[in-house]
This record gives sequence, structure tokens and C-alpha cells, in this order.
Amino acid sequence: MRIDNHTPKQDGFYMPSELSEHRCTYILWPERGDNWRHNAEKAEHVFTEVARTIAKYEPVVLCVSPREYPVALNLNLPNVQVVEMTSNDSWIRDCGATFVINGRGNMRAVDWSFNAWGGLVNGLYFPWDQDDLVAAKMCAIEAVNRYRLSDFVLEGGSIHSDGEGTILTTEECLLDPGRNPDMTKEEIEEKLKEYLGAEKVLWLPKGIYMDEDTNGHVDNICQFVAPGKVVLAWEDNEEDPQYERSKAALDYLESETDAKGRKIEVVKIHVPNPILITKEESSGVDIVEGTFPRNEGDRLPASYVNYYNCNGAIILPVFNDPHDEEAIKTLQELFPNKKVEPIYAREILLGGGNIHCITQQVPKP
Amino acid sequence: MRIDNHTPKQDGFYMPSELSEHRCTYILWPERGDNWRHNAEKAEHVFTEVARTIAKYEPVVLCVSPREYPVALNLNLPNVQVVEMTSNDSWIRDCGATFVINGRGNMRAVDWSFNAWGGLVNGLYFPWDQDDLVAAKMCAIEAVNRYRLSDFVLEGGSIHSDGEGTILTTEECLLDPGRNPDMTKEEIEEKLKEYLGAEKVLWLPKGIYMDEDTNGHVDNICQFVAPGKVVLAWEDNEEDPQYERSKAALDYLESETDAKGRKIEVVKIHVPNPILITKEESSGVDIVEGTFPRNEGDRLPASYVNYYNCNGAIILPVFNDPHDEEAIKTLQELFPNKKVEPIYAREILLGGGNIHCITQQVPKP
Repeated sequence: MRIDNHTPKQDGFYMPSELSEHRCTYILWPERGDNWRHNAEKAEHVFTEVARTIAKYEPVVLCVSPREYPVALNLNLPNVQVVEMTSNDSWIRDCGATFVINGRGNMRAVDWSFNAWGGLVNGLYFPWDQDDLVAAKMCAIEAVNRYRLSDFVLEGGSIHSDGEGTILTTEECLLDPGRNPDMTKEEIEEKLKEYLGAEKVLWLPKGIYMDEDTNGHVDNICQFVAPGKVVLAWEDNEEDPQYERSKAALDYLESETDAKGRKIEVVKIHVPNPILITKEESSGVDIVEGTFPRNEGDRLPASYVNYYNCNGAIILPVFNDPHDEEAIKTLQELFPNKKVEPIYAREILLGGGNIHCITQQVPKP
Repeated sequence: MRIDNHTPKQDGFYMPSELSEHRCTYILWPERGDNWRHNAEKAEHVFTEVARTIAKYEPVVLCVSPREYPVALNLNLPNVQVVEMTSNDSWIRDCGATFVINGRGNMRAVDWSFNAWGGLVNGLYFPWDQDDLVAAKMCAIEAVNRYRLSDFVLEGGSIHSDGEGTILTTEECLLDPGRNPDMTKEEIEEKLKEYLGAEKVLWLPKGIYMDEDTNGHVDNICQFVAPGKVVLAWEDNEEDPQYERSKAALDYLESETDAKGRKIEVVKIHVPNPILITKEESSGVDIVEGTFPRNEGDRLPASYVNYYNCNGAIILPVFNDPHDEEAIKTLQELFPNKKVEPIYAREILLGGGNIHCITQQVPKP
């Protein structure tokens, strides 16, 4: 059911950290040929590998359109439930529900408005009506009630929660005119606090260079590894346009404290070398009026920070890049009790995001 | 996941009685205009009333196509979860999963082949591909593994289980050439025992008069009210073609014992007076080549026995008929701890079935 006239904060609910225990992970099957080359045939394989890998650690709910349903069903992957779900694209981090708990065994969810990362201002496609129903459908499957915000646009990839009152986001995304142009920064911050049950919002200035699809989602540049501790996508080369973005984030984080008054410890993870779309990759994508193009030579917003925390593992995108090894090592040291599972994820990156963007956790209430 | 090379019986699973405690009830939203008049607008209201009534007693999962999803979601009915599910029509008793339990807290399901009550021999419509996926989709939502029978056709409405080893069915349906024409009665019986974890099958000769849609499903003529005890749709008038069907069933039941060796006690519930399709009702149905017609003057297979057992109630179809009162009284006496909830269900009957046909229970394992 829809819950009207209350907020999660009023009802004692908050968004737990992605690091808390999960009941399961949701993934949406890729399909659209104007985003995924060769009608998503290659993306299907990588999404399947991500699902299969996570399913070694926790249940996976794979959401698939009626057209592709029999294909996904017949994969018959262990610990993967294949449910029907129509969508416009496959970024369930962004269009999916944000689950909130009250610490007494109850769970609900926040069902934000979704407008394809900018609506008619600078969104990636039209329409986005089916994506906007994904959160409600997840709530129905999980049998939880939902707070529906029909007047506030937000994507799950634009926020991280430490589960202890602190939310991490970026000004670049949340203040972009394609989301909530009539709201001030203070009003947006108030919404986040009310609907995520939080006390403090940390505003990084910008996301990763060339993350124009999402207008700089935080989940590509910074992620909590513990309360009071984050990993930050880094670039040593001061000539690279990524440098000033990472440096600004570092300066901001070093000047701030979290909701509990802790200083923020920052662990750097160097980004891979610039990855450009090849001619072959670009030519496999259908060209459709009104959909964001994937042009040869465009630099992709590659980052190791877009990994996914599941119960016993870190599902890490890698790129056959010299920096892969260091990213694996850093995360393995940060999470000695988890297994780092690297997946070659260039195909997901070609679609505009990475492993964190195609997953959405359901906490264990 | 699909379970291959085992049967429920081999694995210690059996179909519990509908009278056992439920986790929830599934219902599929009506849509097709060539079966439901006025593009199902009236049927939607009755299905909603059925869902709302059951939801007073146990959770309801309402399954709706992508096209109609926003409509059903916005009903915002208490204790009703609205999930996406494409189908060809709305008879989840027949195309849905048959859940089996092992009495030790585990649940699985049987996913029979579905061919629209007779396939290309005498089925009601073509294609039926989406209906045939409904069971798998229910299993995914319930997160249970399924035994898929791609070589055996069966509808849930053609069987009842007492949960103690006895299955009730009809020869008229299960031996009809539209189901499994290459199997003998003995082979069919063996399948039922293996997949329902049963010891004995009771074969009533026929179902209700004019139940040509389903070829005489048992769930319109006879239902367990306890192990060793059934209600039977009855007709006093020996001139009515229903009489010989009910009498043949009575004679058979009185001559048989169940899996535990008990004699079968039979409680009669008189059918309503003949109900014929009116000109107005017939004219509201779209005419489409290949779909079963709904002609003015056709007699409908009306029966009170097509009620649904939910946790605290009997959801009973009534027809504004003089026999309504007796049916309510009989069932209330049979179930003193449940509430009989009569619902005026002519609209469901016009589509070819009734309340039992549009519901499917998930047991509490």
C-alpha cells in the first residue's frame, strides 16, 4: 500500500547502509537497442554474470520484460528468481525503490519520482513511465508499503547512506535543473533527511568527469566503506579533467564531519586510464531520435567506486586496465572478511553506468 | 529454479488441502474484451470486490498486465500487493502454480503445462503462451523452486486435494482429448499421485452441465470440506440435465473410500435455477475468430460449490437466486469458525467460471 501524509523519519524508519545485511539484490534485464549495442545481446551476458556472481552470496531477483521473460527464465540460475517487470531501461539503482527499516524488524520503501535523469530538460529518453513504476513493483514483490513522492525526483544512485544519519550526495546532480528546479538546496536537503531518516547531508561538488548521463551521481565517485570512512575515485594526473573533481571532493570531505561529528577518513582508488567508445562499439547502438547518443571517441565515466556491496562480497567492475590490480588490492584490504569479485564490465560502462547502477539491495529488516 | 529429474512425491512433498492455513491468495486481473464484456470493465469491479474481501482475512497478490498496472495500483487496497504479470486471461486457478509442502516448513510448486483448456483440439483461445508462464512467475515471487511438467497438461481447477493422500477429479476433464490424448487413465493417475504426493485418485464421471469451457472441472461440482467429507452440487429436478450428473457423482462417491480407507460423507448444495446469457450480456463481448463465443440464451455453469476457502472465510458466489440462502446456511453450518462472505458473482460466471476459478492459494509452509 501507499502511505500518505507521513514520512519515514516521522515513522521511525531510515535507510540502512548498503553494508548492512541484505535479504536480496534486484537486477533489471537490459533490452533497449538504442542504448545497448546489438540489441543488448552482449549486455545480457554481463548482467547474467553479475547476477550469477551475486547469487553465490545472496538471493537475486532478476526483473525481466514479458518479451524477454522466457529467455531469462530458461537460464535457470541457482538462487536467482526471475520475475516479470516492464521497464524503459535497466538501471534499477536509479528507478528502483529505496528500502528503509526501523531497526525493529519492519521494512518499508521510498518510491521517488523518476524522470530518466532530467525529464524533458536533459533526460536520456522518453517516456520513462515504466521505469517510474519499478519501485512500486519491487515493493509489491517484497510485500512492503511505500512512501510515494509524486512531487520529488531522485535516483538511488545519487545517494549513499552510512546508516547512522549521514547521506552522501553531489550538488552537480541534485541541483541540476532537470530534477527539482523549483526547490532550493535547503528544501532538497530537508526531503532527503525526512525520507531517508537522516540528520546530515554531505554535498560533494561534482561526480566523475563525463558522467553526463546521470549529471554526476555520487555512486560513481564516492562510497562509504564504514561510517566515517569512504573510498573516493582519484586521479593523480593534474592535467586530467578528473583531477579537479576528485580534489574538490577530497577538500570538501576533509573539511566536514558526519552526523555523529566524526571526521571523514578518505581512501583513494585511482580511476582507470581514459576509456573511449570505439567505432565498432558506437556502430552497434541503434540511433533513435530523442535518445542520448553513444558516439565514437566519447570518454566513458569509468570508476572502480561503482562496485556493489553484497553480503559476502564486493562485486567490482574492472576494465583490463593497469589500475585494476590496485583497486582489487585496496578493496580486499578494506574488506578482509569479504571476497572481491572482479567482473570485466566494459559492456555495462558502454550503456552509461556500472555494477552499482544495475543493482539495488533489499536490506534484511 | 526448475527442478529436473525428481517428483514431489520422491522429494517428500504433497499438495495440502485448500482448508489448511494460507500465506496468501493470488488473483489475476481480467482484461480480454473477447471474453469479458465491455472490455472487462464490469468484471474488474467484481474481481476487486473478491480481492478486497479476501484481503480482510489473508494477504492478496493481485497480478496485472503492464497496460492495466497503474489502474490496479491506484486502487491502493489494504493488504493487496499489485505485481506485474502478463497473461492471456484471468483464471489463475487453472494456469497458476500448484504449491506443495513437505510438512517441515518447506514449499515448492508444480508448474503444469497449460493449453487454454484443450489446446488446438477444443481450447478457448489462442495463444496461451503467457498463461503458461504464470506459474513460473508466481514461483519467482514466492521464491520457491518448481517442478515443471512440459509434457503434461493440467489445470488447478480440475483437482482438489484433501491433504491426506486423496485427490478428487473428473473423467470428463482429464480424459478429454484436448489435454493428454496419448496417455491412459492409469498413466494420468500416476502423474497426479507423483506430482501431488497422493495415494489415491477419486474420479467423478462428470462436472457441471454446460461447463464446456473447462470440460467439467471438479471445482464446480465437488469440494472437500474435511478429509472424508465433500459438498456436491445437487439438482432435485430429475428432468434437468444436471440431475444425472450430480446423481452419478453421488453414486460414485458412495461406492468409494478415500486414501485412508474412509467412506466419503456427501453434503448436497442445490445449484441455482438455470441462468442464461441475456442479449445485453452477449452483445457486450467482442467477437474474435478463434475465441469461444458467449451467445444469448446459452446456459451458464452456475454452482455454489465454486466457492473459495480462505483463512477465516468462505468466499461464496451468489446469484440473486432462491437457492442462495440455503447455500449460505449449509456452508455456515459446515464452517462454524469461518465467516461466509457471499458475493454477487454473475459477472464472473459470464466469463466462464467463478470465485474458485479466479483464486489460487499459497499455503503457509
